[in-house]
Amino acid sequence: MPKLITFDDIDNLATGSAFLGTGGGGDPYIGSLLAKEAIAKHGAVPLLSLDEVPDDAKVFIASGMGAPTVDIEKLCAVADMHYAVEALEDHLGYRATAIISAEIGGLNSVVPVAYAAMRGLPLIDADGMGRAFPSLHMTAFNVYGVSCTPMALSDEHGNVVIFKTKNAETAEELARPVVTAMGASASLSEYPMTGVEAKRTAVPDTVSAAIAIGAAIRSADKSIAPVDRLLATLRSLPYYGHAYRIFDGKIIDISRDTSRGWVFGRCVVQALEGSSQAEIRFQNENIAVRVDGVLKAIVPDLVCVVDLETAQPITTETLRYGQRVTVVGCSAPPQLRSPKALACMGPSAFGETVTYVEIERLLGLDPTAGGAGT
Amino acid sequence: MPKLITFDDIDNLATGSAFLGTGGGGDPYIGSLLAKEAIAKHGAVPLLSLDEVPDDAKVFIASGMGAPTVDIEKLCAVADMHYAVEALEDHLGYRATAIISAEIGGLNSVVPVAYAAMRGLPLIDADGMGRAFPSLHMTAFNVYGVSCTPMALSDEHGNVVIFKTKNAETAEELARPVVTAMGASASLSEYPMTGVEAKRTAVPDTVSAAIAIGAAIRSADKSIAPVDRLLATLRSLPYYGHAYRIFDGKIIDISRDTSRGWVFGRCVVQALEGSSQAEIRFQNENIAVRVDGVLKAIVPDLVCVVDLETAQPITTETLRYGQRVTVVGCSAPPQLRSPKALACMGPSAFGETVTYVEIERLLGLDPTAGGAGT
Repeated sequence: MPKLITFDDIDNLATGSAFLGTGGGGDPYIGSLLAKEAIAKHGAVPLLSLDEVPDDAKVFIASGMGAPTVDIEKLCAVADMHYAVEALEDHLGYRATAIISAEIGGLNSVVPVAYAAMRGLPLIDADGMGRAFPSLHMTAFNVYGVSCTPMALSDEHGNVVIFKTKNAETAEELARPVVTAMGASASLSEYPMTGVEAKRTAVPDTVSAAIAIGAAIRSADKSIAPVDRLLATLRSLPYYGHAYRIFDGKIIDISRDTSRGWVFGRCVVQALEGSSQAEIRFQNENIAVRVDGVLKAIVPDLVCVVDLETAQPITTETLRYGQRVTVVGCSAPPQLRSPKALACMGPSAFGETVTYVEIERLLGLDPTAGGAGT
Repeated sequence: MPKLITFDDIDNLATGSAFLGTGGGGDPYIGSLLAKEAIAKHGAVPLLSLDEVPDDAKVFIASGMGAPTVDIEKLCAVADMHYAVEALEDHLGYRATAIISAEIGGLNSVVPVAYAAMRGLPLIDADGMGRAFPSLHMTAFNVYGVSCTPMALSDEHGNVVIFKTKNAETAEELARPVVTAMGASASLSEYPMTGVEAKRTAVPDTVSAAIAIGAAIRSADKSIAPVDRLLATLRSLPYYGHAYRIFDGKIIDISRDTSRGWVFGRCVVQALEGSSQAEIRFQNENIAVRVDGVLKAIVPDLVCVVDLETAQPITTETLRYGQRVTVVGCSAPPQLRSPKALACMGPSAFGETVTYVEIERLLGLDPTAGGAGT
């Protein structure tokens, strides 16, 4: 019997996905409204572990592509997403039997629940990133050999564009300007794959992980500080277990530049006492954090900014001067740490010249010891 | 028995197409090399009049899309074009039985000959514009109800993008940035249609007309000035018969701005004697010509700049200070002059605020009288 994603799981999933989005992937709040509405109308969504997926399953992605700053203003509908998935189904000549998330971080982790509910299809408890990344080709699917294309992009009017490219990087290069022409926000169905391919390449159990992380952040239990509860939950999970409180402080500087379809920027956090500063670089997602110039965590490991008091994740587009925040870092799933993966989504893919060092080596602390930093 | 396009027709077709390109459509010289090579290798190409096209023919376009200034530097190959046509055939599930030109002006009138030769298919003696236009939706096919999509765009690496849009304008908007991402020059197969649709919408006999115009320009006969011979030939043709020598002079000013995938600009021609000036506005193609501020011809009628001595057409990207030129104007095919057509490709489509007036009314002269203007 597969688990079910019910109405009551959605807020936890949205909050956990916002955390795993490491500042990017779009605010899952809008997606959570769609998911709740779809579950209320069509019923709970079966959540299949990768073990439960038939080898010959036809696995499709229902996702959005665009600038998170626009997604807030240009609302999406599940029906819009169907334009993309249906166009890809028509092109391939067969129908989806299961849905998988492209990325568990941000909006793209919640919207597939809504879509799966509408279609009456199961969702797979896995995704292509174990977090969020700003580019189509930055997935474990791509790194381990699933083709990104054919893929279908659609706008809210039902205009459809199908891409068949030699590699995922070219799919990204050709699709990004179309998304811009479509109004900087569009629906996308990419990486069509079989059950066998999903089992071989996807990052397992990440939907469950997001729900658990969200539950930890949203818990009403007052016996433990929310950030500490979040860290304890991360340490109980298979991937994100090297989890650290890197810095506590107040945001004193924030700059953003929206260009080429992304949001580039940096955020400086000043310690509440003393002169220590943390600087976070981001490209949609947080890329790296340095404290007083010393690197503390870098992609693909997760750098997350959360509210100091509530542990609520803060996306890069909602970072504001004066916010009191904790910078949390945790280890990426092992699929993202291989040499092949680092070439695709490691520091150099984001213009960083440093070599990747695992967060647990950078911080040099026992992850069970209660956190590093300030 | 259909006519044949032979090796010896290609130079005439290229020159005539350069004239009908009204300054745009790209220099047909490169295409003429491809066409000659293909005919030498595969044999002459049957040229079917629209009457000869079977009603159930599967008519495909093989064309290029991009900035003419780039086409000069980034050479195209017939094999590249096949990526686009084959992708569209695969998408539709059937194969081409005839090829038609999207536009008889410029590069896109010669390249289909090369492609038809390679495929062993006939070319239809007709096209979608009767001239050249800078946008995908500016065709008689579109005006009279053939869908621009599904259409396929490809680059020289075989990356393919298929568009299915609600209208041809959206196809243009979504495809243009992809062409830019592909290096500002790409292959395109659009407006797939049946024989019946081609007969109902295409501008007939334009390939033959281009060959006749080219022959007039290139004739070795010294008994009549080349521009006069060109005008006489135009007046013998069914569409272009209201043909005028609008202005003779020397180019004294030329400005170009390559932006949004087009070349915008203006050219000022000073009379050889006296102070009279002609000003030509262009957007890839020549849009309008005014003499001392008075409108003499405007789209969709054809405004062509040719060499004063040789009548060789000069494209907007090769206009140069000091060239001695004749500005020739002639009437557009009637398909482009209907109210529906004018809404799509008339003056307002190019930012002109004047109402369209036919060249024969603007110049108010008997077209058989030997020309207007200077």
